[in-house]
Amino acid sequence: MTPRPPAVVLLSGGLDSATVLAMARHRGFDSHTLSFDYGQRHRHELAAASAIAKVLGATRHVVTTIDLRVFGGSALTSDVEVPKDGATGDVPITYVPARNLIFLSFAVAFAEVIEARDIFIGVNALDYSGYPDCRDEFIRAFELAANLATRAGTQHHARSPEPFLRIHAPLMHMTKADIIRAGTALGVDYALTHSCYDPVEHPGSATLACGRCDSCRLRAKGFLESGLPDPTRYA
Amino acid sequence: MTPRPPAVVLLSGGLDSATVLAMARHRGFDSHTLSFDYGQRHRHELAAASAIAKVLGATRHVVTTIDLRVFGGSALTSDVEVPKDGATGDVPITYVPARNLIFLSFAVAFAEVIEARDIFIGVNALDYSGYPDCRDEFIRAFELAANLATRAGTQHHARSPEPFLRIHAPLMHMTKADIIRAGTALGVDYALTHSCYDPVEHPGSATLACGRCDSCRLRAKGFLESGLPDPTRYA
Repeated sequence: MTPRPPAVVLLSGGLDSATVLAMARHRGFDSHTLSFDYGQRHRHELAAASAIAKVLGATRHVVTTIDLRVFGGSALTSDVEVPKDGATGDVPITYVPARNLIFLSFAVAFAEVIEARDIFIGVNALDYSGYPDCRDEFIRAFELAANLATRAGTQHHARSPEPFLRIHAPLMHMTKADIIRAGTALGVDYALTHSCYDPVEHPGSATLACGRCDSCRLRAKGFLESGLPDPTRYA
Repeated sequence: MTPRPPAVVLLSGGLDSATVLAMARHRGFDSHTLSFDYGQRHRHELAAASAIAKVLGATRHVVTTIDLRVFGGSALTSDVEVPKDGATGDVPITYVPARNLIFLSFAVAFAEVIEARDIFIGVNALDYSGYPDCRDEFIRAFELAANLATRAGTQHHARSPEPFLRIHAPLMHMTKADIIRAGTALGVDYALTHSCYDPVEHPGSATLACGRCDSCRLRAKGFLESGLPDPTRYA
């Protein structure tokens, strides 16, 4: 039996990255999942990520702490009000500066250490809610930079025109409904996933989604359009 | 009087990045310096960085913590012996996986928050000691990815073919002796800087350089070739 090749899967605890983990498993990868504790307000995401990694058979789940708050600047990590009932501009204030650039950079470090060539990220250009770092153009430019930054990418480049490190963004051109259908077919239990930017937490009971932030609205619309039941518990 | 434009300067506490900070100041930038606490063994670098930022007039010095040790894999952050008396391979074991990729990604986040277009990094392709992420090819690829990742870069790109974010690597093609001469002319006090990968620390007295690791050897050779006195205190 051929050993399964290792891959790094960025896992946020949300619907998209859980689907990506299931896809990586389906493609035969031995998944090493990576989550970030970056002072996000929706910290129950970290518990969700850990549960999802376990249920979907990740080999190892790593959480690393980064401090983006020293720079300030986003609703996700500061006290600015999360926008409700519809986006208000081109790039929402829930944007964390350079977030996917930072997350992918850590994924590259992790990949280099475990000698993985494959990194999976759940970015999506259709539902991307105005985040510039969720476009294919960014992912391809990052892949090139990552290959030039690393020992493995550099040594490989001398022998082959193919990239050594491959950044996979399998959800890039899928609708939320397509993502939900694909993940359901691969056995993802979306009740374990959290998408809300502004959840309601009750001590001693489950965290409830607000149902009104951009992320909740995209998710609810996705379930509606997928024709599958929405297991999300709303406040 | 025109206000000085802001810039982010990556500052390690070493000779190269101190020179870069002096260069950024000389070019008229208002420098915001950024250092990383990544569990490096040579932690006196952080104290050096703070002292250098102060002496060279940085507007603000930020230290952010990142945890690369969760991945393992380098002499700089683990217990592997630092190689002495000459390099042993193409890429030294003091290589930290994806380090400049991660450092630059944080610099981009910082730049976006303070609305800076300019990032300075002290990488050098001549004395680069085998690190792949110290080459111009990497820096240019990263610059493109950074512009595609960020709100400012994206919005600017719609109006201009010039990059919004500019990654400056002014030492790229300079010899160590050239760097020392340039920094000395700009008033850098190299006695404040530390380069050693394996310093000798005596409680209650100054940290001494080992004089034998790759970094010490490059530094000592640079001073010798520059014709300027070497203020480094060796063990």
